[in-house]
Amino acid sequence: MGQRPGGRSARVREAVHNAVVELLAEGDSDVSIGEIARRAGVNPASVYRRWGSRDRVIMDAAVTRLRAAWPMPDTGSLRGDLRAWVAAVDQALASPRDAVLLRALLATLPTTPEQGRERAGYLADRVADIQRVLDRAADRGECRLTVDEVLDRLIAPLYVRALFGATTAGHGHRLVDQLLADHGQPG
Amino acid sequence: MGQRPGGRSARVREAVHNAVVELLAEGDSDVSIGEIARRAGVNPASVYRRWGSRDRVIMDAAVTRLRAAWPMPDTGSLRGDLRAWVAAVDQALASPRDAVLLRALLATLPTTPEQGRERAGYLADRVADIQRVLDRAADRGECRLTVDEVLDRLIAPLYVRALFGATTAGHGHRLVDQLLADHGQPG
Repeated sequence: MGQRPGGRSARVREAVHNAVVELLAEGDSDVSIGEIARRAGVNPASVYRRWGSRDRVIMDAAVTRLRAAWPMPDTGSLRGDLRAWVAAVDQALASPRDAVLLRALLATLPTTPEQGRERAGYLADRVADIQRVLDRAADRGECRLTVDEVLDRLIAPLYVRALFGATTAGHGHRLVDQLLADHGQPG
Repeated sequence: MGQRPGGRSARVREAVHNAVVELLAEGDSDVSIGEIARRAGVNPASVYRRWGSRDRVIMDAAVTRLRAAWPMPDTGSLRGDLRAWVAAVDQALASPRDAVLLRALLATLPTTPEQGRERAGYLADRVADIQRVLDRAADRGECRLTVDEVLDRLIAPLYVRALFGATTAGHGHRLVDQLLADHGQPG
């Protein structure tokens, strides 16, 4: 009557992610693998075996949760997709729970090229999400944006303004409209 | 034969800033006021009295040092000023010592509106630096940019790319040229 290994593995991952989010939300910015394992009710050795380091656990939890919290919309138009998405990002950045994850992601900044590549690997799924939105727009004959433009013109300003408490209402929509206007698509 | 209070006060501030940078560079991300005071060779009570909290000491050290490391240039043209500046930011973000300060600044993210206002106060000098560059350009009859545009189109992408290890050579210059092109000033 054993449970499927995949099911157990997914439950451990879920419990570990929950533990990370809870501990971070409680203000424990220096959370250790031991604390995470205790809170998740799993063996510290299996957390070490699966993730290898505290920073990797936090990065995995943060990227997984933020990606789930901010799904890429499919509204039928590029402007609609981007507007819906930045509105969701804006809202998430204003919520304490998501802000904690963002802060954690930033607190595990890569300090070596290897860590940088590892982080890029974690973010690759997110880049693929964005690429799909842009590909759909290109297929419909709408303007052709690059992931780099989305990063520089939409994501970066929203993140930095959230970090410095300089967000203003409707700013995300204005960023989308300005980007599309600069590509010959006035609103 | 006492020393001027201003001189002593400035030396304490300098010693405390040095201590913060050293401790952070050594990887002590959870540095306390006690450790900072010990390293600086000053009384913890006077650090508490002057700054009030650990986050304020770190924020003061980070903003002061980053502002000194990245002075706003005065080259005679807006494109020249912005290009020189983004090159300096790019270089600073690639240096481990400055990266530590940036990381520290992000690790003391405001979590309440009051902290947000306090942080905005620390950054006000920097905003004034940028405004001066833009005012000089407007006085010369060059194009009129806003601090918001500089934040969204130049600072935010450079910061976020540095954080995610996605910086590419010459990216800062391309951001400046694209911003000016979008204002009718092709390079």
